[in-house]
Amino acid sequence: MTEMDRPIKQVGFVGIGHMGKPMCLNLLKAGYPLILQGRNQKNVREVVLRGAREASTPRDVAQSAEVVFTSLPDDRVVEEIVLGKNGILEGMRKGSILIETSTISPLTARRLAATLSERGIEMLDAPLSGGDVGASEGTLSIMVGGKPETFKRVLPILEKVGRNITHVGGHGAGQVAKGANQIVVALTIEAVAEALIFAKKAGVDPEKVRKALMGGFAQSRVLELHGQRMLDRNFEPGGKARLHRKDLLIVSSLAKELGIYLPGTSMALDLWNALAAQGELDLDHSALVKVLEMMSRTEVCPG
Amino acid sequence: MTEMDRPIKQVGFVGIGHMGKPMCLNLLKAGYPLILQGRNQKNVREVVLRGAREASTPRDVAQSAEVVFTSLPDDRVVEEIVLGKNGILEGMRKGSILIETSTISPLTARRLAATLSERGIEMLDAPLSGGDVGASEGTLSIMVGGKPETFKRVLPILEKVGRNITHVGGHGAGQVAKGANQIVVALTIEAVAEALIFAKKAGVDPEKVRKALMGGFAQSRVLELHGQRMLDRNFEPGGKARLHRKDLLIVSSLAKELGIYLPGTSMALDLWNALAAQGELDLDHSALVKVLEMMSRTEVCPG
Repeated sequence: MTEMDRPIKQVGFVGIGHMGKPMCLNLLKAGYPLILQGRNQKNVREVVLRGAREASTPRDVAQSAEVVFTSLPDDRVVEEIVLGKNGILEGMRKGSILIETSTISPLTARRLAATLSERGIEMLDAPLSGGDVGASEGTLSIMVGGKPETFKRVLPILEKVGRNITHVGGHGAGQVAKGANQIVVALTIEAVAEALIFAKKAGVDPEKVRKALMGGFAQSRVLELHGQRMLDRNFEPGGKARLHRKDLLIVSSLAKELGIYLPGTSMALDLWNALAAQGELDLDHSALVKVLEMMSRTEVCPG
Repeated sequence: MTEMDRPIKQVGFVGIGHMGKPMCLNLLKAGYPLILQGRNQKNVREVVLRGAREASTPRDVAQSAEVVFTSLPDDRVVEEIVLGKNGILEGMRKGSILIETSTISPLTARRLAATLSERGIEMLDAPLSGGDVGASEGTLSIMVGGKPETFKRVLPILEKVGRNITHVGGHGAGQVAKGANQIVVALTIEAVAEALIFAKKAGVDPEKVRKALMGGFAQSRVLELHGQRMLDRNFEPGGKARLHRKDLLIVSSLAKELGIYLPGTSMALDLWNALAAQGELDLDHSALVKVLEMMSRTEVCPG
């Protein structure tokens, strides 16, 4: 049995937010001893009550774990928690693995992976899709970038928190796939919103139109789920518009750097800027429809 | 047994194009005696060889049939064939039914229905989705506008040519649903194209990204089918960009008239105008990706 085949015993987790908490609970349920650290004390206590051990710094988490997950809000915080004082890098041993599940820039992910690699530490970028519901149910989509052998080694752990787990390519590739995912979801929400508003203003029941469209080329998960949300005016998140907008800002910034023409993504960003102006970024991302409704003076609802 | 319950015996068909021909063949297969007229002599002969009878004018078709289908290129031709000299209206008897399957403006559909109604003739607008493949296999989506009792009366015939058959509302509602369908399909193609180009330019295999996205919120028929077309560079239609553009022009014109803000639809139209400038409107509508590729100087293909 080589080092690579040895099962992983101690798992660490930094960042116990709305995604981190349910993932921790699933890891505990699967029998992994867990050591964690996070700023949300309520969530931390909840996970500790189920058997996790709390550490006082990210460094302390890293010292006791072979595999460390991070689930953090943005690039700045990830860099601080990994590279900063009392950070993960200070505690990690050679041969250990960082699984970075936050949505950050592919460039930041590649840079971090290179820095860790100099110390003999492997990193996977492993952003998630599926929201807190997917995290609770252990059905997250996980898009992974990094070395294939590292992916293979931690796959049994990832399978405890997700269902559609794809190794997309080298470092940063997981983040690129997440960006692509967010482009598709944003524009499909836009597509469904425009179609339902068009139906409504043309005097036809948007609910019947949605049903008619489900059977053909227009079928999508977004038509099914977000389309229904628009009809029900159920904008409780779900996936917050604020976070989706943040993800498209990452895409847009990389597109600027690499010279990529993404007119639809730019348009969706503009519409989310308008939603920001209304102070409604904490609604579900399907609330994009509200901007279009405002512009057309209508409201999508069953006829 | 009332008049409304009596099964329909003689069916007429005007317009034997790439959609009309396979629909006629399915009607013959189902045992309906068929009388038809069309300009495409090759197609007409083929259907006549399978047992249909040819009439010399649309009027003659209408004189011999209780239900008449039309499958024609645009509003102008539909109005000419229905209202013009030797047209359908001249031949139709009171109580007979026109099933208009062309994609035309909802306003034209409503106007025609009103004119026919004055002569005691019922009309259904029944535009199709699913292309010539759906027509051949008898699996078309049919979005129907008109009176519920008329719909009920012809449903057994419609079930011989389609599978997802929805009565959406009154006259014109089928055309509105078709417009909504074309909005969703166009913008989902745009979404998938932008995502694959983003992946490619960011150095990640678009094929793996497509697979990773199939399991989550980004799932759609378009990601599945048109996404694969983009990877295979298979732009043989399928659904021609020219026809999809025509449909969005109808949507856009109605949006202008009614005051509907559809920024994504307008963008898709612009991109199809660019495809027109390249002389490539006869490609499949997934060729929208070619305009984006040109702008970003890249080509989507497996890595």
